Amino acid sequence: MTFSLERQLVAEFLGTLLLVCTVVGSGIMADQLSSGNVAIALLGNTIPTGAILVVLIMIFGPVSGAHFNPAVTLVFWLKKHLNTRSAILYCSAQVIGAVAGTIVAHLMFEWAPVELGTKPRTGISQWFSEGVATFGLLATILGFVKFKEDAVAYGVGLYITAAYWFTASTSFANPAVTIGRSFTTSFSGIAPTNMPGFVVAQLIGACLALVVFNWLLQNKAR
Amino acid sequence: MTFSLERQLVAEFLGTLLLVCTVVGSGIMADQLSSGNVAIALLGNTIPTGAILVVLIMIFGPVSGAHFNPAVTLVFWLKKHLNTRSAILYCSAQVIGAVAGTIVAHLMFEWAPVELGTKPRTGISQWFSEGVATFGLLATILGFVKFKEDAVAYGVGLYITAAYWFTASTSFANPAVTIGRSFTTSFSGIAPTNMPGFVVAQLIGACLALVVFNWLLQNKAR
Amino acid sequence: MTFSLERQLVAEFLGTLLLVCTVVGSGIMADQLSSGNVAIALLGNTIPTGAILVVLIMIFGPVSGAHFNPAVTLVFWLKKHLNTRSAILYCSAQVIGAVAGTIVAHLMFEWAPVELGTKPRTGISQWFSEGVATFGLLATILGFVKFKEDAVAYGVGLYITAAYWFTASTSFANPAVTIGRSFTTSFSGIAPTNMPGFVVAQLIGACLALVVFNWLLQNKAR
Amino acid sequence: MTFSLERQLVAEFLGTLLLVCTVVGSGIMADQLSSGNVAIALLGNTIPTGAILVVLIMIFGPVSGAHFNPAVTLVFWLKKHLNTRSAILYCSAQVIGAVAGTIVAHLMFEWAPVELGTKPRTGISQWFSEGVATFGLLATILGFVKFKEDAVAYGVGLYITAAYWFTASTSFANPAVTIGRSFTTSFSGIAPTNMPGFVVAQLIGACLALVVFNWLLQNKAR
Repeated sequence: MTFSLERQLVAEFLGTLLLVCTVVGSGIMADQLSSGNVAIALLGNTIPTGAILVVLIMIFGPVSGAHFNPAVTLVFWLKKHLNTRSAILYCSAQVIGAVAGTIVAHLMFEWAPVELGTKPRTGISQWFSEGVATFGLLATILGFVKFKEDAVAYGVGLYITAAYWFTASTSFANPAVTIGRSFTTSFSGIAPTNMPGFVVAQLIGACLALVVFNWLLQNKAR
Repeated sequence: MTFSLERQLVAEFLGTLLLVCTVVGSGIMADQLSSGNVAIALLGNTIPTGAILVVLIMIFGPVSGAHFNPAVTLVFWLKKHLNTRSAILYCSAQVIGAVAGTIVAHLMFEWAPVELGTKPRTGISQWFSEGVATFGLLATILGFVKFKEDAVAYGVGLYITAAYWFTASTSFANPAVTIGRSFTTSFSGIAPTNMPGFVVAQLIGACLALVVFNWLLQNKAR
Repeated sequence: MTFSLERQLVAEFLGTLLLVCTVVGSGIMADQLSSGNVAIALLGNTIPTGAILVVLIMIFGPVSGAHFNPAVTLVFWLKKHLNTRSAILYCSAQVIGAVAGTIVAHLMFEWAPVELGTKPRTGISQWFSEGVATFGLLATILGFVKFKEDAVAYGVGLYITAAYWFTASTSFANPAVTIGRSFTTSFSGIAPTNMPGFVVAQLIGACLALVVFNWLLQNKAR
Repeated sequence: MTFSLERQLVAEFLGTLLLVCTVVGSGIMADQLSSGNVAIALLGNTIPTGAILVVLIMIFGPVSGAHFNPAVTLVFWLKKHLNTRSAILYCSAQVIGAVAGTIVAHLMFEWAPVELGTKPRTGISQWFSEGVATFGLLATILGFVKFKEDAVAYGVGLYITAAYWFTASTSFANPAVTIGRSFTTSFSGIAPTNMPGFVVAQLIGACLALVVFNWLLQNKAR
């Protein structure tokens, strides 16, 4: 099955919108209800995010590949799975979708449509966390695509469920999502000035995964 | 495999009964045990609902399609998958099942069989939440039915797990369930006067999803 | 693949042992760590039980059918899937395994090997809960066996995850497990004098499910 | 598909690294955020560990078998699935990966790279717990490999999710992971002097599982 480029872009837009809407919306809900116990709030943020990723990758995967993430699009562009024009359009659709996702979440919870994030997330250990997080995300995607492609949705959902907790940054691992989250002051927000550091770390982690797994996943010729 | 209409209706009745019984029953249990931490109560409401949906769609799906939801029946009637008479009977079985589910949950927890709900759930942001929630639910169903029909039960269970948290209304997303939940004063209840607003928002969200995904999921002819 | 009767009985023994060991052990752990928040304790009891059921049914299912439950054995005996002698031996292996499971859990947590349960669980609404819980369990098993047999392990794990919360009794739904849990004073225990009421309610729920689903799951001849 | 020995060793190294990184990292995160409610901290440690295991076994399994665990390597060496030299190299890669995993987690959370663990975990009931935990882990692996090999990743993830709670030791069940965790003073650490007792108990549990399941899983010849 192949789909027209416009359908692919709408899939990337809508998928990233629903992903960020879930991250931001569940962050608001969990924070409001958890009486200040941040671990419970993070559980209420983690479980919905992992769950929605499985759904979104299943329903949009056959249309656009379900990247929802410029780091993923970069890697598949480097692997020549999509051309430069498509890659740029994909990233644009993802960023617009991410910001729209924040707006939809805010409207559901009666917040102003956009606000500039205030949560400081910076420093070497945060950047290192984002590098590790995105390395692991691409490892997951490249491994599943090679060995068990029809379960990649479950793989990504489970990986992000884990990465929320084992990284110090709660694993944004996605430049578009990072931009979307820079427009909220809520639980899952990030100060816009800290956004570029995250994005750079994410792209480095993604490229490193590509190098390592390109070598690692080469089986012997028969 | 095809099943007689009466078996289909019993499947819709029994499935909706067990679904609402889980929503209301786990809401009572979680609320009673959570010492006022509402996020924990919502976790104890979310996890059982997501889990039971997988089970119910798997065991009743081959019999009736496992709609359990007039918004889903409406969409499949618009897609001409079932005729008008069947659609009306389906919706009736679902509503009766939903009310019966509240009664069964109440009897297990020694509450009066039915009470009129008291929890106010109204206003534009709540209605917008229900529209988004039902749009997402139908997106999930239409996407899985097209690309991975045998996993639609997992898709719906995971979607509702997420939607409980990312919408401001905890995602009823189902007119029959909304009616069933208007007969309880417990954690998951809704005031009957607020019920029509939810139902209208849900039907709009469902129809919007039908329009968008009818276009989006059209692949190129070969 | 067929296995000798002695292997079948060891599978039933070992599976029921590990199941009860998980229920009782995770109950002790969760209760000790949860600082009196019973909803958190129940989450810490629910998630392990649902998870271990998937594992145990997968690894012992091809050997013995993975009943681990006299109510399930009764239903399959009524359906003539196993003969009377095997059924009696199965139930014996399950009960012995259940008590052994309590002992193993107690030894891990430095409790006395067995104690008589003290937790009162009785009354019409508790019995009604056990009837509903076991009706649902058999509905799950009969439905998955008919439509998706290779996923029955996931079905049962998810069903019990839900049933812990939507029934007032936390869903024992298993006479052997009930007997095993009557030998612990911990979180998941039951007073031995209340055990017979639970067992009777469970057997009634199981038989009712057999009657309903025997009729419901009959598809039209072609 | 077969992979070169060096790729197999890198897979074992990287997989064990990411596994221990998740155990230690999520332990730190969960402990910091849980306001002293240890059950919530353990949930925040359990869910990521179970989730990452599914991912790691899926993506590294076809390369190296995804042991990540000398007890597993021992059993497959006894079953003659790999030769002595490979087995020794596997265990070395696992231990080095485990220590590296602790270091990576520590760096993400701005801790010193390694510290000697201080948490006492010793005594007969702790050792018994580790024996039971590792017996169950190998039962899971041997059962899934025989009956449902392509789902072994889900089996192990679910088993460890349960075993965190039903054993008194939170189920290390892995000598390499135990060594890795002896280099952290955080939530999931263990005092180095208590490490050998855990390792011995784990190896005994693994061998016992091999003996029992070698017999149990023998089906009748036709």
